[in-house]
Amino acid sequence: MKALVYHGPGQRSWEDVPDPKIHDPGDAIVEVDAATICGTDLHILKGDVPAVTDGRILGHEAVGTITETGPSVTGLRPGDRVLVSCISACGHCVYCRRAQYGQCRGGGGWILGHLVDGVQAEYVRVPFAETSVHLLPDEVSSEDALLLADILPTAYEVGVLNGHVSPGDTVVVVGAGPIGLATILTARLYSPSLIIAVDPAAARREAAEHQGAHLTLDPGTDDTVTRVQELTDGLGADTAVEAVGVPETFELCTRLVRPGGHVANVGVHGRPAALHLEDLWIKNVTITTGLVDTSSTPTLLRMLAADGLPVADLVTHRYALSDIQEAYDVFERPAETGALKVALTTG
Amino acid sequence: MKALVYHGPGQRSWEDVPDPKIHDPGDAIVEVDAATICGTDLHILKGDVPAVTDGRILGHEAVGTITETGPSVTGLRPGDRVLVSCISACGHCVYCRRAQYGQCRGGGGWILGHLVDGVQAEYVRVPFAETSVHLLPDEVSSEDALLLADILPTAYEVGVLNGHVSPGDTVVVVGAGPIGLATILTARLYSPSLIIAVDPAAARREAAEHQGAHLTLDPGTDDTVTRVQELTDGLGADTAVEAVGVPETFELCTRLVRPGGHVANVGVHGRPAALHLEDLWIKNVTITTGLVDTSSTPTLLRMLAADGLPVADLVTHRYALSDIQEAYDVFERPAETGALKVALTTG
Amino acid sequence: MKALVYHGPGQRSWEDVPDPKIHDPGDAIVEVDAATICGTDLHILKGDVPAVTDGRILGHEAVGTITETGPSVTGLRPGDRVLVSCISACGHCVYCRRAQYGQCRGGGGWILGHLVDGVQAEYVRVPFAETSVHLLPDEVSSEDALLLADILPTAYEVGVLNGHVSPGDTVVVVGAGPIGLATILTARLYSPSLIIAVDPAAARREAAEHQGAHLTLDPGTDDTVTRVQELTDGLGADTAVEAVGVPETFELCTRLVRPGGHVANVGVHGRPAALHLEDLWIKNVTITTGLVDTSSTPTLLRMLAADGLPVADLVTHRYALSDIQEAYDVFERPAETGALKVALTTG
Amino acid sequence: MKALVYHGPGQRSWEDVPDPKIHDPGDAIVEVDAATICGTDLHILKGDVPAVTDGRILGHEAVGTITETGPSVTGLRPGDRVLVSCISACGHCVYCRRAQYGQCRGGGGWILGHLVDGVQAEYVRVPFAETSVHLLPDEVSSEDALLLADILPTAYEVGVLNGHVSPGDTVVVVGAGPIGLATILTARLYSPSLIIAVDPAAARREAAEHQGAHLTLDPGTDDTVTRVQELTDGLGADTAVEAVGVPETFELCTRLVRPGGHVANVGVHGRPAALHLEDLWIKNVTITTGLVDTSSTPTLLRMLAADGLPVADLVTHRYALSDIQEAYDVFERPAETGALKVALTTG
Repeated sequence: MKALVYHGPGQRSWEDVPDPKIHDPGDAIVEVDAATICGTDLHILKGDVPAVTDGRILGHEAVGTITETGPSVTGLRPGDRVLVSCISACGHCVYCRRAQYGQCRGGGGWILGHLVDGVQAEYVRVPFAETSVHLLPDEVSSEDALLLADILPTAYEVGVLNGHVSPGDTVVVVGAGPIGLATILTARLYSPSLIIAVDPAAARREAAEHQGAHLTLDPGTDDTVTRVQELTDGLGADTAVEAVGVPETFELCTRLVRPGGHVANVGVHGRPAALHLEDLWIKNVTITTGLVDTSSTPTLLRMLAADGLPVADLVTHRYALSDIQEAYDVFERPAETGALKVALTTG
Repeated sequence: MKALVYHGPGQRSWEDVPDPKIHDPGDAIVEVDAATICGTDLHILKGDVPAVTDGRILGHEAVGTITETGPSVTGLRPGDRVLVSCISACGHCVYCRRAQYGQCRGGGGWILGHLVDGVQAEYVRVPFAETSVHLLPDEVSSEDALLLADILPTAYEVGVLNGHVSPGDTVVVVGAGPIGLATILTARLYSPSLIIAVDPAAARREAAEHQGAHLTLDPGTDDTVTRVQELTDGLGADTAVEAVGVPETFELCTRLVRPGGHVANVGVHGRPAALHLEDLWIKNVTITTGLVDTSSTPTLLRMLAADGLPVADLVTHRYALSDIQEAYDVFERPAETGALKVALTTG
Repeated sequence: MKALVYHGPGQRSWEDVPDPKIHDPGDAIVEVDAATICGTDLHILKGDVPAVTDGRILGHEAVGTITETGPSVTGLRPGDRVLVSCISACGHCVYCRRAQYGQCRGGGGWILGHLVDGVQAEYVRVPFAETSVHLLPDEVSSEDALLLADILPTAYEVGVLNGHVSPGDTVVVVGAGPIGLATILTARLYSPSLIIAVDPAAARREAAEHQGAHLTLDPGTDDTVTRVQELTDGLGADTAVEAVGVPETFELCTRLVRPGGHVANVGVHGRPAALHLEDLWIKNVTITTGLVDTSSTPTLLRMLAADGLPVADLVTHRYALSDIQEAYDVFERPAETGALKVALTTG
Repeated sequence: MKALVYHGPGQRSWEDVPDPKIHDPGDAIVEVDAATICGTDLHILKGDVPAVTDGRILGHEAVGTITETGPSVTGLRPGDRVLVSCISACGHCVYCRRAQYGQCRGGGGWILGHLVDGVQAEYVRVPFAETSVHLLPDEVSSEDALLLADILPTAYEVGVLNGHVSPGDTVVVVGAGPIGLATILTARLYSPSLIIAVDPAAARREAAEHQGAHLTLDPGTDDTVTRVQELTDGLGADTAVEAVGVPETFELCTRLVRPGGHVANVGVHGRPAALHLEDLWIKNVTITTGLVDTSSTPTLLRMLAADGLPVADLVTHRYALSDIQEAYDVFERPAETGALKVALTTG
C-alpha cells in the first residue's frame, strides 16, 4: 500500500510499504477513507519528538472502514465505518478504568503515528480496536467525523471542561489557530456570555468571530490585560485558555484570569514558562494541563449526529489522500494559505 | 490599651495605643483572650508586605470576648466568646456570595493586622463582625480554637480540599513547618493510605510522623522523586502539597505528582517558579493556588467540638500576651527553639 | 398605598393599606415598577398555604426603585433600580453561608407575600435588603428582569442544575406550563442534543417547541415511556424534569430516566407519590427536590444583560398594576387565555 | 466438581456438576479459595429473583486462583490470585466507559450466580475476566479480600459516596446488618463527626458501636426523628443511609435528613415506598439509588493493603467450602446466630 513515511527531520515521502497485518488479538485493520494532518505532525517533522523514528508512518486522525479484526474483537466487524481516535486505550489499566485513556499505562495513549504506524496511509492497524475506535452513525459524514479524531475532543476536554466554562462566563482564548477555534466552538456549548479571542493574525481573528467569539483582540495593538479587566469589572476572565504553546501566551493567561478562575493549557510546549507565584499564591487560580483522553468522543459524536456541532468550517482545504504531500505543503504555511484543517480522502 | 505595633522593617514594640472604637455599623469590639503569631507576621516585619505601614497593630488570629457591637449587628452580643478569623467578609460581594471570602471585593479579605489594626492587642475592632467571627461552643478551649483562625482552614482548604485528597491516595507534603503539619493533620480526615512528608530538618520530620505521616524523606539524602515513584508503581503522588514557599519546592511538587494528580500550593511565595510545561503539557495535572477563604471554619469548629481534630500538639510555647515580644523572639528561631505555634493568653 | 390583599380562601382585594416603613436596620423600601403573579399565589388563594393569613399582601416577584434604606444598608441607595427576589437571605446563617438562601434559618427564605407583606403593591418593605435584592444594569428592561425574580432561577437551579443537564444529553420536561417552558429555555444553556416536552395541551406543546424543545409528546396519545426508549437506544433520558406537581407526572419521570440519570422535581406537590424502589433500587438514579436558592440570579442577570437569555416570550399579558384583579382572572384560566406570565407595571 | 446449586425456591444442594470450561475468548477459569454468602442469595432462595433458574450455581463473591484463560486475556495468567467481583464488566459499552460497570450493557453487570453460574463452587468461569477480576497483592489475605467482592464497595459507593459523606457531617445509618455495618466502616474514611446507627436489635447496635458508630438508637423505644433533630440544632442529618430494604425505613430516612442533605438507598427493595413530596418538594434533598459499580474496588484494595480498612470483624463464622449448607443454615438465622458474613474456604 501507499503511506506517508517519516525519514528523519524534514523528510517525508509518500511511498510503498507493506500492508499492515493483525498482530495482537485485539487489533483491527482499517481502510482509511479520510485522514487529516495535525500540528503535532509538523512538530515531528521538525525532529521535536525523538520517539518517532525513521520509517514511521505518520498520522493519528482518520475515518475508515474495518477490513479485518483480531480474534478477541467481538463488537466490530468488517464493513463497519469507524472513527479512528488519536488515543488508543488498553481498557484495563488504572487510567483506562477512570476514562483517562490519554494516560493509558497498558500500551495505549497516543501511539498511532508516534510509537506505531499511523493513519496517513491506505490501511492502518489499530491496536485495542474495541476501545479505540468509534462506530459512526450514517448521518455523520466522514469529513465531519474526522474533526472528532483529535481537535474537537482536545479543545473540549482540555480547554472547555478542564477550564470549567459555565453559562454566563467570560472566556478568553489566546490563540485562534485550529485548536483555538475548536475551543471557541465547543465553549459555546456552555453558553458563556463573552468569548474573547486573542491573536495577532487578522485572518484568525476573523475566523474566531465566525466561530462565535464576541470580541477579538490583537495583542500587537490592544493591551489585552487592561481590556479584559475593563470588560469584567476589574476582575479578569473566568477562564483563560492557552492555545498556542509558547511561554509568553501561557504567562498572559495567568494575568488574564480572575481570582478564583481557571487557566486551561491546551498548547503543546517546548520550553518552561515562568509561573509568577509571587502574584498567584494569593489569587486562588486553578491551572490545568493535559493530553486529551477522548472520553468525550461519544458525546461529541452524538451532538454531531444531532446537528449540534457546526464543525464544517474548520476544514479549509480538501485533497485526495494520494496528494498528501501537497496538503502538507499547504498546511505548513497557514499564514499564507489560510489553512485550518485539511481533509484527505480516498475514493 | 497595650498592643504590638509595627514601626517599619525590624521594628516592633508592645506599647500603649488608644482603645479601638466602633467605626462602622457592622463592627464589633473584641477583648482578646488568646492570640498567636503567623509566619506572615514575620514577613511583614522583614518589610516584605509594603501595604503594612508604620503604626499598624499586627496579628490576624485570635479568640476573644465581644464587648461592644455596632447598630446593625443583630446576631452577636457582648459576652459572646468568638473566634476572630484571619479573613473578614463583607457578606454581599460576588465573592462572598460564593463563600470565597478570601477574595472579598467589599472591603474584607485579609485586612486584620494588614490594612486595619490587628489582634495582637488587648482589644480589637473587627469589621463586618457578623460574617467574620464565629461563636465558640463551650466545649472548645480558646487555645484549640486559636488554631482555627488561620492555620487549620488554610491547610485544609488550600492544601487538602484544593488538592482533592481522597481515601486511599498517596499525598506528599513538602515542608513540615506549622502549615505542613496542619496539612498532614487535616489530610488524614480523608484517609489517604500514604502520607509522605519531605523536610530537611530532623525535628520537623519527627513532628510530621507524630501528626500522622506514614513516611518522611530528607531531601538532603533521599532522592525524593525516585522514592515516591518506587512507592507508587512508578506513577507519582496523587497530590503534592507545597508548604514552604520557594521555587525549588514548588518545582519539586510538579515532578512528584502523577499524571492526573494535583499540586496544591499553600506556601507564600516571593519569587516566580519555573513551570516545566515542556513536561507538564501532556501530564494532565491540576495546579492550585490560594489564600484561605475560611469557608470551612464552621465545619472545622464542629469537628473540634466533637473531638475529631487533634490540634493540641501544634502549640509548642505558651506566654502571657504581655510577653509577646519574647514570644516573637522564640517564634522567629524555630530551628533552635522547636517552635510551631505559640499561644498568647490574657487573664 | 394600594395593595392586593388576601382575605382568606378565594378572597383577594385591591385596597388601601398603610405604606410600609423601615422596621429593621437592614430593610429597604422599594417602590414597585413591575410585578407578576406566580402559580404559588393561586395555591395561596385556594387556601393551600395556611401560613398565609388574612390581611397579607401577596406577591414575591418584582422590580422596583429603592426609596429608603435602613441604617445598616451601605450598598444600596434611594433611586437604585433593583430586582426583588422571591428569596430573602439573612446572609449569616449556615445555609446562607453555603449560598442555599432558600433554606435560610435566620428569618429569610421565601417570606415575601407569605410570612411578611409582598410585592403586589405600590411599595414593599424588603428585609435583609443587601442580600435579597439585585441591582439592575441599565440595559436590562424591568419586564425582562421580572422573570428573574422566581421562575428563571427556579427552572435553572431546581430543574437544569439539579438535573445535571449536560451537552449532548436527552432531557425530558414533563409539563410545559410557565415553569416547564423556563426549564426548556435554561436547559438550552447546556446544549442538550434532544429536549422532549410532554404536555396534554396542544398550545403548550407549541409553546415548548417555540422555546426550543426538539420534540413534544402528548401523554394522551403517545406512549411516552416507549417513545423515549426508542429515541435513546432503549436507555431512557439522561434527565427528566417534573414541572407539574402531581404524583402521576413524578412517577412518569422515574420511568423515563435512564440508569445513572437524574430526576429533578420542580413542581409544587400536595400529595405523596409512589417511589417504585422495587425497580429503582438497582437503577442508579438521583432524585432531587428543592426550593430555589436564587444563587444563580447574578449569573442569569449577566446573561440577560448580554442578550443571552431570550425570556421575552414568557410574558403573554400586560396590565397596569392597578388592574391586577383582572390579571389574576386571566392568569387563573390559562387553558382559555393562553396566559404564561403576566406583567403588571406602574407609571 | 462440587457446587451449590439452586433448584427452585427453598431448594439448594451441594452436588457434583461438570467443571466449567472457557467459553468466550475473554473468559478465565478460577479455582475458588474462599467464597461467601450474600443476603441476595437468600432472596434468590426465596424465589424473589425469577431470572435465577433451576440448576444455577449460586454465589457472586469469591477469591481464587486462575487456572486457565481465554485467548484474548493478556493481563492475567494461571497462578494469579484474584478477587472475583460481584460485577462483571464488558469494558466497551457506554456504561463501562463511564466506570458504571453495574449497568453494563454488553453482557456484564451482576451476572455471576444470577444469569451465569456463580462462585459457590470449586471452580468458576468468569466472563470478561480482564475487567472483572482484581489481582491481589500478597499482603492481603483471602478472607479480607472476600469482603471487597460486594459488601464493602456496595456500602462505600452506594452509601458513602452517593450520600456525599464529608468531614464533620452527621450520618444516620438505618439498619445495622452486614451492609449497614460496612457503611459505618467506610463512612469513617471521610471523618464524619457523628455516626448514628438505628436498629431494633441490641446485638446489631452493639456491633455498630464496635464499627465506630458514635451513638445508636432503638426505633422501638427512641423517637428517632426527634433525637436526630436534637443532635443537629433542629436541622436533621447531612446524610441518611437506608440499609434495610423496606418502605418504612426508606420513609424514615426522608424524615431524618436535613434540608440540602442526602438520602442514599442501599437496601434491596421489593415494594414501593411513599415519597412525601408534599413535604420534600421544598426541602432540597437528593435521593440516590444504585447497584454497586465496583469502580472503587482498586481503591479499597489499596487501602486494605495499607491496613487502612479494618474489615476483619465483619466475618463472624468460618467453614470449609464443602460445609456450605451448614453455613447457609447459620447465615439465614442471624438473630439467633449473630452471623454477619461467613467465610467459606478450601484447602
